[in-house]
Amino acid sequence: MATKECDLLVIGGGPGGYTSAMRAAQKGLKTILVERRDLGGTCLNRGCIPSKCLIQDTLMISAVRNSPFMKGDMKVSLKRIAERKNLVIEGSRSWVERLLAGKNVTLVRGEASFTGKNSAELKTSDRNQEQISFSKAIIATGGVSNYDGFAVDGETLWTTEDALALKAVPRSLAIVGAGSRGVEFASIYHNLGTKIILIEKENRILPRIHPSLANRYRKILTERKITVMTRTHVLSANRNEEKGVTLTLQNERGKEEIKAEKALLTGFRRPCYSGLNLESAGLSLNGETLYYGIGMQTNTEGIYVIGDAAGPPYLAHKAIAQAIAAVDHLLGKPLEGGPVLFPVCVWGDPEIGSLGLTEEEAQESGSPVKVGEFHYVGNGRSGTMGNSQGLVKIVSDAKTGKVLGVHILGPQATELISLATLVMQNGVDVAGIKRTVFPHPTLSETFYEAALATDGEAIHMLLEGFEY
Amino acid sequence: MATKECDLLVIGGGPGGYTSAMRAAQKGLKTILVERRDLGGTCLNRGCIPSKCLIQDTLMISAVRNSPFMKGDMKVSLKRIAERKNLVIEGSRSWVERLLAGKNVTLVRGEASFTGKNSAELKTSDRNQEQISFSKAIIATGGVSNYDGFAVDGETLWTTEDALALKAVPRSLAIVGAGSRGVEFASIYHNLGTKIILIEKENRILPRIHPSLANRYRKILTERKITVMTRTHVLSANRNEEKGVTLTLQNERGKEEIKAEKALLTGFRRPCYSGLNLESAGLSLNGETLYYGIGMQTNTEGIYVIGDAAGPPYLAHKAIAQAIAAVDHLLGKPLEGGPVLFPVCVWGDPEIGSLGLTEEEAQESGSPVKVGEFHYVGNGRSGTMGNSQGLVKIVSDAKTGKVLGVHILGPQATELISLATLVMQNGVDVAGIKRTVFPHPTLSETFYEAALATDGEAIHMLLEGFEY
Repeated sequence: MATKECDLLVIGGGPGGYTSAMRAAQKGLKTILVERRDLGGTCLNRGCIPSKCLIQDTLMISAVRNSPFMKGDMKVSLKRIAERKNLVIEGSRSWVERLLAGKNVTLVRGEASFTGKNSAELKTSDRNQEQISFSKAIIATGGVSNYDGFAVDGETLWTTEDALALKAVPRSLAIVGAGSRGVEFASIYHNLGTKIILIEKENRILPRIHPSLANRYRKILTERKITVMTRTHVLSANRNEEKGVTLTLQNERGKEEIKAEKALLTGFRRPCYSGLNLESAGLSLNGETLYYGIGMQTNTEGIYVIGDAAGPPYLAHKAIAQAIAAVDHLLGKPLEGGPVLFPVCVWGDPEIGSLGLTEEEAQESGSPVKVGEFHYVGNGRSGTMGNSQGLVKIVSDAKTGKVLGVHILGPQATELISLATLVMQNGVDVAGIKRTVFPHPTLSETFYEAALATDGEAIHMLLEGFEY
Repeated sequence: MATKECDLLVIGGGPGGYTSAMRAAQKGLKTILVERRDLGGTCLNRGCIPSKCLIQDTLMISAVRNSPFMKGDMKVSLKRIAERKNLVIEGSRSWVERLLAGKNVTLVRGEASFTGKNSAELKTSDRNQEQISFSKAIIATGGVSNYDGFAVDGETLWTTEDALALKAVPRSLAIVGAGSRGVEFASIYHNLGTKIILIEKENRILPRIHPSLANRYRKILTERKITVMTRTHVLSANRNEEKGVTLTLQNERGKEEIKAEKALLTGFRRPCYSGLNLESAGLSLNGETLYYGIGMQTNTEGIYVIGDAAGPPYLAHKAIAQAIAAVDHLLGKPLEGGPVLFPVCVWGDPEIGSLGLTEEEAQESGSPVKVGEFHYVGNGRSGTMGNSQGLVKIVSDAKTGKVLGVHILGPQATELISLATLVMQNGVDVAGIKRTVFPHPTLSETFYEAALATDGEAIHMLLEGFEY
């Protein structure tokens, strides 16, 4: 058996894996990337990218249907929506492959298994075996979804992958789990005309998002005739005689049954290490996740874990940031101090972008807190877009003006939240936001006005006599 | 005649005027705002806001026409597009009126004329006269457009106001002036199906924008079969026998005549002081603009000039920033050091956002300069939007990492440029951008990748073998 040598072996070709491989190659390391399935991982193939394609297209369908100035008979082709999505996926995948080649990363298609702290065996997809000896390794094997024992079948009981396949538009869809993915799929299928029932076991939808935004979101969904049930557990899900699915629910009112044509289980994610043979490399778990310390290094020196394989939060941008941190660490680059802030986004309709503390969390620290809130209804650009629903909330330290949290619900919230990450990561305070000129008319002015509102200075907002 | 007293008299109710009035009232000043026409000024009634409405709606028409997944017969109602635009204008105007009342600004509808350094006469729209004695005054009277002697008639020879009225879709439209407004109207009418000829006397379109972006923009317009002529002067424009207009042009090839159904003159703006009686207040002009110094104060102590009335650049966000600076100055608040940065935007299709120096301008200072360039084609979110045309360019000081300029062409460029203003106004350097986590997948990642590209570290970009 041939033995290949490399400076860095990266296992897994999702956003975290391929970013770390390219970063290392850019810095001069001889790098091998192993991927057993599709380049781009969950994000590109079965997550962020396809779902954004569907959101984009279904939002357009909804906009056309509700247009005040276009009328007529438009035929929507589901097949073409799916085709466009598949083209975007394939294009992105081949782009990543081209990037890897262009940056001198060796791509091996197959499965890696540790045989020691500096060695692994590769079973390539053409059934060859190779031995790899590496100086460093990065585990970027992603995560898998867990469905609490429900027998997802792709027929009546869907996973998000089935929902992305867009084979049909069901008349009704029960979505189990109202986190960001549940809410995104609610938006996609609602805009396609499906009756949606959104079921969440926590006491509110979007449990990781600021409660006041989550509550406002629920209200918006309810106004659109989407049924939202919280504090509700799904006990069973069975195919019924009408070729649909019957869900048995348990909530405060007791048990009840509901029927839908399809049910979508958004599932729970956990790290995936299958086939890695962690013991050979002396790797220890901390619960169900590999132990890691500074620079994402595991308990075995020179072996790192990043992205979904490193546990929650399960965010592609977290994987990318950890990829760069791990490579910098293994190159001996001194780490910068301070925590790294990961924004949380919801790409539904409307969007949410959220970062840092809520006012309640900030108050717990004992310092006085200020909240600056501005509503899109006072923003000129959103008026011209015909979509003025939402708000920007900035939580700051009352004494120092330090920004502690930013929470945005409304048009382009997933883009606007980057203003917050820039500010918070670099210590720009409320005065710094107020000092900045935001172009008019743009949605970004909502961020400026929220900063003004911190000190009662917002221009395009009424403090009294208007219900926001 | 009654005499009213106030702490601050603001003349002109555009974005600069009403912002300064509200700011002053918030700070406890007894404030009177005088407006002779419509609240919101040019921006709200005849500029930014209506043009964004039309861009929004016509982009949607174009998107539907080119949709890969919707087919059918859609009737577009011009009348309804105009109605929606008018509703947005009226809604915004009444919102400003409500804001003024809610913040205790006294609104007087009429015309103001200085009678001294602390007094003015108001001719109200109900033909009453009032005397006002004020402690401070802000001149926010905006600007007027100048058409170089061409006899705009609203029939064949349009102003931007005529173009916004959307009375008809001409088969062909010659647009004279390819600055941001010219390009925006080219986009609006092109998307409505009009054949566009864009004529610019300078040696390139968008003369205030980075030359490489402007050249790329020209290429995009040309690919859409929009005719672009630069270094071309319009000598005359006359109604012809076909009820259209014949323009006589002069350029390097000599004189030539072209015909179009309508011609749009974008005009040149200059400050407007009509009826103000500047001499009574002892105010001096510097050329055609009122002299002003620190805090926007004119040569007469206590009288300020802001916005378009203070000369170029003619930007609503400049007016708003100057409004706040003037009020803070007249309240005796110490001014913060350093220049204020005004981004320049083009809301055409595609968009542009630009701020600070080009690489050539930066090199002139003598310091070594780095350029980080990233193309949307490598951005996941733009792929899902089906629009990956464009780039982000960051110009920085090679030694210090200080960001000197940012130039963006592509989807949401007018929003993304706020990342640049935040960074540049607050001294966040290239390392600070790289330290920030931008959510995936978003367009804002293009800004992050351009920062990485500054040091040859971009991930989603090929350095060789790809023509961007």
